[in-house]
Amino acid sequence: MPSLGIDIGGTKIASGLVHSDGTVHEVRSRPVTGMGETALQQVLDVARSYLAVHPVAHVGVALPGGVDPKTRVVTTAPNLGWTDMSLAQRLSAALDRQVHVENDANCAAWAEHRFGAGRGRTNTVLITIGTGIGGGLVVSNRLLVGHHGLGAELGHIPLVIGGHPCKCGASGCWEQYASGSALRAEARRRNWRPGPVTGEEVLRAAADGDPAAVHIVEWVSGHLAHGLTTMAAFLDPGEVVLGGGLGSDKRFVEYVDTALAAFHPSSSRGHVTVRPAELGIHSGVIGAADLAATIHGSAHC
Amino acid sequence: MPSLGIDIGGTKIASGLVHSDGTVHEVRSRPVTGMGETALQQVLDVARSYLAVHPVAHVGVALPGGVDPKTRVVTTAPNLGWTDMSLAQRLSAALDRQVHVENDANCAAWAEHRFGAGRGRTNTVLITIGTGIGGGLVVSNRLLVGHHGLGAELGHIPLVIGGHPCKCGASGCWEQYASGSALRAEARRRNWRPGPVTGEEVLRAAADGDPAAVHIVEWVSGHLAHGLTTMAAFLDPGEVVLGGGLGSDKRFVEYVDTALAAFHPSSSRGHVTVRPAELGIHSGVIGAADLAATIHGSAHC
Repeated sequence: MPSLGIDIGGTKIASGLVHSDGTVHEVRSRPVTGMGETALQQVLDVARSYLAVHPVAHVGVALPGGVDPKTRVVTTAPNLGWTDMSLAQRLSAALDRQVHVENDANCAAWAEHRFGAGRGRTNTVLITIGTGIGGGLVVSNRLLVGHHGLGAELGHIPLVIGGHPCKCGASGCWEQYASGSALRAEARRRNWRPGPVTGEEVLRAAADGDPAAVHIVEWVSGHLAHGLTTMAAFLDPGEVVLGGGLGSDKRFVEYVDTALAAFHPSSSRGHVTVRPAELGIHSGVIGAADLAATIHGSAHC
Repeated sequence: MPSLGIDIGGTKIASGLVHSDGTVHEVRSRPVTGMGETALQQVLDVARSYLAVHPVAHVGVALPGGVDPKTRVVTTAPNLGWTDMSLAQRLSAALDRQVHVENDANCAAWAEHRFGAGRGRTNTVLITIGTGIGGGLVVSNRLLVGHHGLGAELGHIPLVIGGHPCKCGASGCWEQYASGSALRAEARRRNWRPGPVTGEEVLRAAADGDPAAVHIVEWVSGHLAHGLTTMAAFLDPGEVVLGGGLGSDKRFVEYVDTALAAFHPSSSRGHVTVRPAELGIHSGVIGAADLAATIHGSAHC
């Protein structure tokens, strides 16, 4: 019997039925059109639409926020207007079955560990690089949820003391230096082209040999390698799985490989290589469902 | 029945019998007076001196080097002149019983996790600050040995790009900024006092209100807090256990607390506090013995 995975994003709710081998079917997507209780009701509607017609073993929910590791209460999910929301408890009561709730990046890391690029390994580090940096860690085949329930707050490692300000209130955070928005911001700071530019434009120009664009991509990939090398010295995972729009871009990953090699002297024993995430946009759905099955059931049937 | 722990250091071999509650007795210490086969023979002599007169369940060895996570071969222990040394296998054959071999910092982290400052927690991060920075990580109650078998290569995270050169061949490594030798080096760079100074002199002068000494200690503790905050963003351990000469110094730890608070905005969710290691110089012996008992036996008897 499959399990139901629901991945609540900033703008849409993705969902699907996930089997014990990680395959997913009945994939759906609907917009999130409200916050607070409205958003909760929409999640319930999605769940009920499956439960009414499909046998479902377990229900797992991925969401963009933090979950208290002890109480499993959603501590904060700003995009959804949830603070100290007993989401699992309320969904469980309404659906009359156990529901497991987890941070979306953690779900994606779990999915890659079980069925994607981390398959067969003991430890999986997923780093997603899009507008910002996110990710999750699986250590000794267990999801690292951390003491405060967010696990890897990767985008906000203090990479550069006294560096560029971050929306989190600190300065010098990794995602200000190694993300899609960092690509755009650095192009702007260097007056690369008049007006706003996209990361795609910078990457394409670099591929076409524009020396200024090459320098911008090198600057961003160098800072990504700096953070990856730091992480490797702590965890020595051997390999890091890169996901997200920029992290999946082959042109960018070539620069990252080169930048990592330049850090090699400081990490000869903890050297790290990168490989692409494999599960794409369904990783949250897959990870949420499989975590629910792993935690609540002995296995899928 | 207790287990035997042997902790091979740079200059001496410490040993003792360790019970299932972490207590240690029959503690001994002898100098290491040779390298290569000579050092191996000295370890054997120590083990035999216990086995001849005491019932011993398991034997664990801590050593300053790396151990291949799959083969358990000692990849490199430069102070002992060992490279690709089948230490566990050779000791096992000579002593006619299973021997477990592990990096010494990992053994200390395991000991603190089981019986010291990390007791009762799921994750324990031990950071030892002496001349350099070392340490080990226990995640989900399992020692993190890492892909290359060294686990936490903490002292060599690339903290400052283009920073002070490190003996490892790279530059900007954490231990060049946040250790006993960093305290001395920074005092020298600032021409604090003529001639060589010790870390103790700097700490004492800072405690007496010498403004220049205060700045040096703040500089070092600030860089320690930088690395700790970075680690917390990856692992969110809540708490970090500090050991080693400098890491155990109450005067220094006060500065570290202050410096960590200054990093708080960037790590509000991954905030980390420090607490002192509890097991002192016997942690290697205790951890090695208890790891052997945990891995080779169901329990001590």
